[in-house]
Amino acid sequence: MVFGWTTVFFKTRQLGYLNQLRTISQTAYTHPSSSAAFSKLSSEDISYLKGIVTPRGVVEEKEALEPFNTDWIGKYKGNTSLALKPSCTDQVSQILQFCYEKKLPIVPQGGNTGLVGGSVPVFDEIVLNLGNMNRIRDFDSKSGIVTCEAGVVLETLSNFVNEQGYTFPLDLGAKGSCQIGGNLATNAGGTRFLRYGSLHGSTLGLEVVLSNGKVLNMLSSLRKDNTGYHLPHLFIGSEGTLGVITAASICCPKKCRSVHTALLGVESFDKVTELLVRCKDEVGEILSAFEFMDRNAVQLATKLLSHVRDPFSSTFPFYVLIETSGSNENHDMEKLEKFLESCYSADWISDAVLAQDQSQMNQLWTLRESMPEAVNRSGKYIFKYDLSIPLEHFYDLVSEMRSRLADYTCQVVSWGHIGDCNLHLNISSSDSNESLSNLIEPYVYEWTRAHGGSISAEHGVGRVKSKYLSMSKDKQVIDLMKQMKQLLDPHGILNPYKIFSKEE
Amino acid sequence: MVFGWTTVFFKTRQLGYLNQLRTISQTAYTHPSSSAAFSKLSSEDISYLKGIVTPRGVVEEKEALEPFNTDWIGKYKGNTSLALKPSCTDQVSQILQFCYEKKLPIVPQGGNTGLVGGSVPVFDEIVLNLGNMNRIRDFDSKSGIVTCEAGVVLETLSNFVNEQGYTFPLDLGAKGSCQIGGNLATNAGGTRFLRYGSLHGSTLGLEVVLSNGKVLNMLSSLRKDNTGYHLPHLFIGSEGTLGVITAASICCPKKCRSVHTALLGVESFDKVTELLVRCKDEVGEILSAFEFMDRNAVQLATKLLSHVRDPFSSTFPFYVLIETSGSNENHDMEKLEKFLESCYSADWISDAVLAQDQSQMNQLWTLRESMPEAVNRSGKYIFKYDLSIPLEHFYDLVSEMRSRLADYTCQVVSWGHIGDCNLHLNISSSDSNESLSNLIEPYVYEWTRAHGGSISAEHGVGRVKSKYLSMSKDKQVIDLMKQMKQLLDPHGILNPYKIFSKEE
Repeated sequence: MVFGWTTVFFKTRQLGYLNQLRTISQTAYTHPSSSAAFSKLSSEDISYLKGIVTPRGVVEEKEALEPFNTDWIGKYKGNTSLALKPSCTDQVSQILQFCYEKKLPIVPQGGNTGLVGGSVPVFDEIVLNLGNMNRIRDFDSKSGIVTCEAGVVLETLSNFVNEQGYTFPLDLGAKGSCQIGGNLATNAGGTRFLRYGSLHGSTLGLEVVLSNGKVLNMLSSLRKDNTGYHLPHLFIGSEGTLGVITAASICCPKKCRSVHTALLGVESFDKVTELLVRCKDEVGEILSAFEFMDRNAVQLATKLLSHVRDPFSSTFPFYVLIETSGSNENHDMEKLEKFLESCYSADWISDAVLAQDQSQMNQLWTLRESMPEAVNRSGKYIFKYDLSIPLEHFYDLVSEMRSRLADYTCQVVSWGHIGDCNLHLNISSSDSNESLSNLIEPYVYEWTRAHGGSISAEHGVGRVKSKYLSMSKDKQVIDLMKQMKQLLDPHGILNPYKIFSKEE
Repeated sequence: MVFGWTTVFFKTRQLGYLNQLRTISQTAYTHPSSSAAFSKLSSEDISYLKGIVTPRGVVEEKEALEPFNTDWIGKYKGNTSLALKPSCTDQVSQILQFCYEKKLPIVPQGGNTGLVGGSVPVFDEIVLNLGNMNRIRDFDSKSGIVTCEAGVVLETLSNFVNEQGYTFPLDLGAKGSCQIGGNLATNAGGTRFLRYGSLHGSTLGLEVVLSNGKVLNMLSSLRKDNTGYHLPHLFIGSEGTLGVITAASICCPKKCRSVHTALLGVESFDKVTELLVRCKDEVGEILSAFEFMDRNAVQLATKLLSHVRDPFSSTFPFYVLIETSGSNENHDMEKLEKFLESCYSADWISDAVLAQDQSQMNQLWTLRESMPEAVNRSGKYIFKYDLSIPLEHFYDLVSEMRSRLADYTCQVVSWGHIGDCNLHLNISSSDSNESLSNLIEPYVYEWTRAHGGSISAEHGVGRVKSKYLSMSKDKQVIDLMKQMKQLLDPHGILNPYKIFSKEE
């Protein structure tokens, strides 16, 4: 077992390669035409809307609109002619009130790092980008409750609460670009979910602007408040289709003084699942991440990205990244070392590296977090899946896809937050091949449904999965969702063509 | 500092003294008349409804109906002539479908341990008691996810998951009687909230029957599922007014091998708040409870309840009960002892006892959990408040009420989950005195609002606080709540006269 290796410096957890990605055909996903119920944006409308925001809050030039029209993976392209960047809640309210009256469709947009085409227009919907609403309104140093605007970048927020002695309960690879409003609207999961749970648990309150412009102030600096319905939860994960989140109050746990990261090489998937159960038991309350990668994923990342390294000298079929966060350095190290040693003795792990400093920790996290970038570079056509699959079947789908696609030149790689049964399955190919595509979809979704999983664990439905919604939810439940949509957005102007498919 | 004391045996955490409590006048809270929109229950209706459930699922005798008509503290009495105890979801669905068609009002009822009169009829509403739906449907030993019916008693559920190596994330004094369905419907908080957070974080899915009898199957054995709106959260905390929760899937954390309990005597409230901040920091990830009691509360409990003892030989103005739960006995004990010693040296605590065995732990918890029983026995007229108050003002209200009521013969006692800023303020008096009552209400609620708190931290609104709802929520937010009620229960048959006051 290797408990140390030479220090390597990396610029880590940054995602700034949008422009290197390719735009990919997505005929299968587009709605055939924009809804006739909406009005066409007129020059008078534009003049009025421009008057609401400051000059730096208006984007009209075709080229400048490109990043507002194109999603993060370059797969979905809208055709808006107007992006508005309000700087306060009142401006959001005025914009929505006008759009509501005029029946003008609008797409709320945060950092635009989503993976299901949810944050860009399908046609010419106005983009409402929250990026200029980026103030931290309040922080209570005794309770760790932060109240901030929707446009605060996750990394900025995370660094801010860190400096105050707290940890932000959400962390994900896109932290350098994604915004807290978008995180909430998509109920983002990420690597800390295992320890700190979902945003439904951490979020104490929201400020939301409804489609008609009415502002709902549901912010709260109280951990407990049982007065009436818990409405903020309705907006968490609603992907901007029920209202626009403009601010949030979130409860942050105390910062852990002692953080350790280890990478384990594992010979079989059965051993990975055993490790997880054992790790939860032995490392217990200090376990803060349990991430999974398969050999193909690690190979791809180290091959395609020069800043990514595999710290092992041998290769393994599976890799597990463990992070612990606790309050006592000696206790934590003792627990982790004891766990690693017992696993090694019992042959559950074949090798392990334990990061000795921040730089080595970064190196391990870089390996894990570079996966999306690596797969995006690996082929022109990429099929990305974000699935919840019960542990006993977790890797079966990956193996099955490899055999199913054996005759094609493509790569099947997987990684994920296995501690939460969340698999990221990716298939990349250099050629556009209809028969390959037909072998993949809807099979992946059908398989997931048949094995009791969810077709979207943490990325949401957006545009990509709207036609498969019924594979995860009963008709009665979808019917109630539609009633909610009708109640809160009767003109359907908020993020149209998302979540629900046209057929439904 | 005392680190041990003689063992005393207690039958702890049982609440079975309903019949000892007095029924108290509540004129101020009753609605003047039942709604004219509802039908009167006819003998034909009764015959039909009786045909849906099994014979043991029908209660009609006046005396047998008494516990269904009377709330836990004996304060609210309804006048139903029919209580139904369905044994499956389909029966609940049939009952509601009939009541919906006939416009018959109905009160969903769990263990009936609520403190805001939410689970008993106001007039003659039918009682739908879920107590016979008490099966644990499924448990996944690898993930700790339990799926069970609404009528499972919290303690039964807690013991069940405990035997499987897990901890139920909710614990409260009424555990021996309350049911998980009621806990969810009221978003119960309790003593483990500090460690495991709210039910919004732990609940993965619900099965709910809507007012029209439609069954929504939103159960889930997945920690992550971002497919569409997160509807279960709408029913958590809706107090049976939007739908009837019939089953739930809840994620349980691993059971902690090492649990320790300590009671601290503290000289001032400032020191209590300092202790909390320090404890979160030093005891960190193993802190599982931080409970507060004032001298009056401890004095009352030890005086009125023979099974309750104060382990200290001296008295203190304030008491804090700390519990730690972790995976390593030595580490946990080291952290806790170090914390206690440092607090003692710094004069933050005046004395401390650390329970040496399960029996002593029970003794400390009995002291804390006997508070409601003690206060109920202390006077004929009891004013109970469950408030969220920011830490800096937490005890000010108690002190203020003592001066405000100095001329009256009454007792002002307080305790609470101070780790979550949740104060239970109780005022008891032997005489019914209108001027005393007028000095208390609405002052307590106004003071709470003025200091940024919530008029109901964990008990809900029910009947008691409906007229004060606007003190915690904006009009726009209450309006949306009402729209939700209208959408989900258009005839208003589900738990009428609760949450919303007639005036609103």
